[in-house]
Amino acid sequence: MKAPAADDELVFLPLGGSGEIGMNLNAYGYGPPDARQWIIVDIGVTFGREDTTPGVELILPDPAYLEDERDNIIAIVLTHAHEDHIGALGWLWPRLKVPVYATPFTAALVREKLREHGLLEKVPLTEIPLKGNLKLGPFDIDFVTLTHSIPEPNGLAIRTPLGLIWHTGDWKIDPDPLIGETTDEAKLREMADEGVLAMVCDSTNVFVEGTAGSEAEVREKLTEVIKKRKGRVAVTAFASNVARVETALLAARAAGRTPCLVGRSMIRIYNAAKSVGLLRDTPQVIDEDDADTLPDENILFLCTGSQGEARAALSRIARGDHRNVSLRQGDTVIFSSRVIPGNEAAIHKLHEQFLARGVELVTADSEHLIHVSGHPARDELKQMYAWARPRIAIPVHGEQRHIREHVKLALELQVPEAIGPNNGDMIRLAPGPATVIDEVPAGRLYVDGANIIPAEDDSLKDRRRLGAEGSAHVSLALSGKNAIVAGPTVNVRGISMPDEEDFELALEKLEDAAKAAFQRLKHQEREDDELVEQAVMRSVRKAAEKLWRKRPLVDVTVLRL
Amino acid sequence: MKAPAADDELVFLPLGGSGEIGMNLNAYGYGPPDARQWIIVDIGVTFGREDTTPGVELILPDPAYLEDERDNIIAIVLTHAHEDHIGALGWLWPRLKVPVYATPFTAALVREKLREHGLLEKVPLTEIPLKGNLKLGPFDIDFVTLTHSIPEPNGLAIRTPLGLIWHTGDWKIDPDPLIGETTDEAKLREMADEGVLAMVCDSTNVFVEGTAGSEAEVREKLTEVIKKRKGRVAVTAFASNVARVETALLAARAAGRTPCLVGRSMIRIYNAAKSVGLLRDTPQVIDEDDADTLPDENILFLCTGSQGEARAALSRIARGDHRNVSLRQGDTVIFSSRVIPGNEAAIHKLHEQFLARGVELVTADSEHLIHVSGHPARDELKQMYAWARPRIAIPVHGEQRHIREHVKLALELQVPEAIGPNNGDMIRLAPGPATVIDEVPAGRLYVDGANIIPAEDDSLKDRRRLGAEGSAHVSLALSGKNAIVAGPTVNVRGISMPDEEDFELALEKLEDAAKAAFQRLKHQEREDDELVEQAVMRSVRKAAEKLWRKRPLVDVTVLRL
Repeated sequence: MKAPAADDELVFLPLGGSGEIGMNLNAYGYGPPDARQWIIVDIGVTFGREDTTPGVELILPDPAYLEDERDNIIAIVLTHAHEDHIGALGWLWPRLKVPVYATPFTAALVREKLREHGLLEKVPLTEIPLKGNLKLGPFDIDFVTLTHSIPEPNGLAIRTPLGLIWHTGDWKIDPDPLIGETTDEAKLREMADEGVLAMVCDSTNVFVEGTAGSEAEVREKLTEVIKKRKGRVAVTAFASNVARVETALLAARAAGRTPCLVGRSMIRIYNAAKSVGLLRDTPQVIDEDDADTLPDENILFLCTGSQGEARAALSRIARGDHRNVSLRQGDTVIFSSRVIPGNEAAIHKLHEQFLARGVELVTADSEHLIHVSGHPARDELKQMYAWARPRIAIPVHGEQRHIREHVKLALELQVPEAIGPNNGDMIRLAPGPATVIDEVPAGRLYVDGANIIPAEDDSLKDRRRLGAEGSAHVSLALSGKNAIVAGPTVNVRGISMPDEEDFELALEKLEDAAKAAFQRLKHQEREDDELVEQAVMRSVRKAAEKLWRKRPLVDVTVLRL
Repeated sequence: MKAPAADDELVFLPLGGSGEIGMNLNAYGYGPPDARQWIIVDIGVTFGREDTTPGVELILPDPAYLEDERDNIIAIVLTHAHEDHIGALGWLWPRLKVPVYATPFTAALVREKLREHGLLEKVPLTEIPLKGNLKLGPFDIDFVTLTHSIPEPNGLAIRTPLGLIWHTGDWKIDPDPLIGETTDEAKLREMADEGVLAMVCDSTNVFVEGTAGSEAEVREKLTEVIKKRKGRVAVTAFASNVARVETALLAARAAGRTPCLVGRSMIRIYNAAKSVGLLRDTPQVIDEDDADTLPDENILFLCTGSQGEARAALSRIARGDHRNVSLRQGDTVIFSSRVIPGNEAAIHKLHEQFLARGVELVTADSEHLIHVSGHPARDELKQMYAWARPRIAIPVHGEQRHIREHVKLALELQVPEAIGPNNGDMIRLAPGPATVIDEVPAGRLYVDGANIIPAEDDSLKDRRRLGAEGSAHVSLALSGKNAIVAGPTVNVRGISMPDEEDFELALEKLEDAAKAAFQRLKHQEREDDELVEQAVMRSVRKAAEKLWRKRPLVDVTVLRL
């Protein structure tokens, strides 16, 4: 490896996932400050929520800084296939247009995404074998096999002329992951002997004592629980946890039940897993349409929707409006999943809906080991620090609380330096002590239908107002002499009164207010559409507030003859 | 007491709070099925939430059934002054128009509410002394002193010719409640000796082992924690917990800090408490405007907003936009409160905002006894059953899960009968075994500005759509001959595109779609405004969906010259 030049620096820049959950976007830069070369590690999404971001399906990290640096970016390297690590690729790749590298299972899911975006032929996507190596300009990267809750989780050992960065990605230490190899401990020790400059590490479960537990333990427990149940059984889990999906399929067989996949992403991942040679010895699944032909005690539904997503299979079943699947008294839903922060209320509602139907629930709260996390608990973090022995600890992948606590833990473990970054903090890792040398813009973009808009966009403020206060629209037609020749007609949405007649009278009052406002204008002012609109708008808004104590968004259209 | 007639029945009808948290509304009926006399016990609200019910401040139980029975209702009796027990009075009293009974502190807060509604002179409100008695037709009611998280919590011993009902209201067993007397154990034992037909009982904390803990323990802990802190300290708690407010005020004094009340409801309850002789020996509070004159280590803010309510004091402080109060590195916020289910995300956000400012947090999770619940944990429930020895257990005041678990607990405790009702279940308590004999309509009403509307109202569906998808309004003016003389002009709200010019072009496309739709109509169809509106609406909606993958609410105004 080339020796570093005198003004070469190595920097780390998180643009997503530091100070928040999800939406990971990390960049490493190498070179003199005015001519850095970059690699991007992961490019994920967060999901929009019906309650807090209505109409927004996905939330992306704002790549503005990297867009400006586009000519200096060598590649995007993906650690694993979770949506919070790869989900933004289809949306943001056109802004970056650089090659992409991933291991086979990740690549399979990425290809599917790119196909949906019509980008399959455009994006140079290279498969890297597990434990493979990749040379990208000043970066020499080893893929290191770890364990997590999805096939092929990789950490990246990123060698540079100024030192080795150990980027963990998402991981845990699963002694028996069921799918894939165990943690490549030998490689970690080897790295440590070489000397790890900085470890950029998952913080999700820093508050959890002990260890995460193993997929093998879940297999045992889930099989035992399902065997005991009499009526229909539905299991919900993250589809991407292929080991868990395999567990549910095998547990079904052990309990004399035929599995049935319910929900688009469950079927999608099932097929992706099959395509890379996984799930080979699992029982045949039955089509949803045919599930009703089986007796209750011979069916097991494996469903999406563990987070209470309103449109996912499980929520539909809970509401009783799923086309093919119904659950009732004596049936059981098993949540082989955790509650992602922010989803408490939605999951809670789901539980209540099932309970109201007499459906029994089994959750990680009621049954230990019905789920295990894919992220390292405290003892696993300690083990990783013992293995890697980094000079600098950079906790990422967590909210403020996690990152702060992780910094504390690292310092307790005698790591010489620890910095907990916020998105946009550019940290110089070498030369010299780790320091935040710049703060670059870091924000969120919302996928709103086909548009990608900034989270602060006025249209979203308008929507919040519309959602809370409703809307009123005033139309009026003016003659060439600025006389009203038709209207004003007021159209109100999102506000109603118990009595229909009262409402008609109220509309008349708004029309009167519009007319009065127009008539108060001087002749000359009536020439100016904008003045007319402003005056009418203000008057109608005031009248609406007086009538209803609501502040609808009022718009006015002036038609000129 | 008169002997029961042959066809007399005693029924219990919950219309709020059974199968959900909050919004308590209970009714007891006595007499023959076609001529029952009723009393209402409590009439509360639930709070609307910005995320799930935008624009809706309060949610009320739908009293439709009781409205129909209005002539047969003798009175509304209030157990205590929490909003989920009295909050709907001002909104629903005009539909019921019956006398109201409450103990003095409750009455003080009720009067304030009635004043706001302009009902103070209209509502016959009678104060009942603590441990007082009240005779209402066939009902003979003793107020029984309990302990809870507000002054003057009463259970009601409701004697009828067919037996005694023990309606607990909200309670715990606090051996040292600091304000008010301890649980009137003697009275409970006396009731049991007389024979309790049915106990209608709080289920909130049925999943919590042990006991709730005492306000006195919180006083000790909170004082200790505050004394240790160096910078500014803010404490948040429910204002209605006057003992807790007193604790914060006294702890401030003990720590050499001057207390400052922040938030309207904090000041309101403080004054109400003073008005009934409470908070006599607490230190003088400083006005918010003057807080900045004190050194950091000499001020204690007592704030509303423990649930992350966006407009409450604490959220403003967290966002850094409170007029008078700011917190920074080295300051502390103490949450002497619990997380009400549904508020997790809002509170979580609040915590993250404070952490991002370097403010330290003390919560019930990090410090035991910084808060205690006002509701009975399992051991307290067992104690109550041991005292009251009811023949029938009717768990209320809880969601599905709580009520089901409480039924199980009661049966384990050898209560002969237990029924967990849903809102609207009319339960015959006597004669014969407890049975659901009817299901009456029970729903929710939303306070939307000045209007009270059903939760299923179309206006709210429209608002959800507006909030997620935005709106488009088309105006066009037609001549007497049905020719377009102006417009169509399209106005879009809540949808934007990154490029302004693209957006202008998109609007033109929508106008073209509107025009084309009109032109496709036969001459005769153009006479009919509704037909024109429908055709234009559909065409514009389709065009918007194609352009943006959004489905805005499209309205059309046809102006006729």
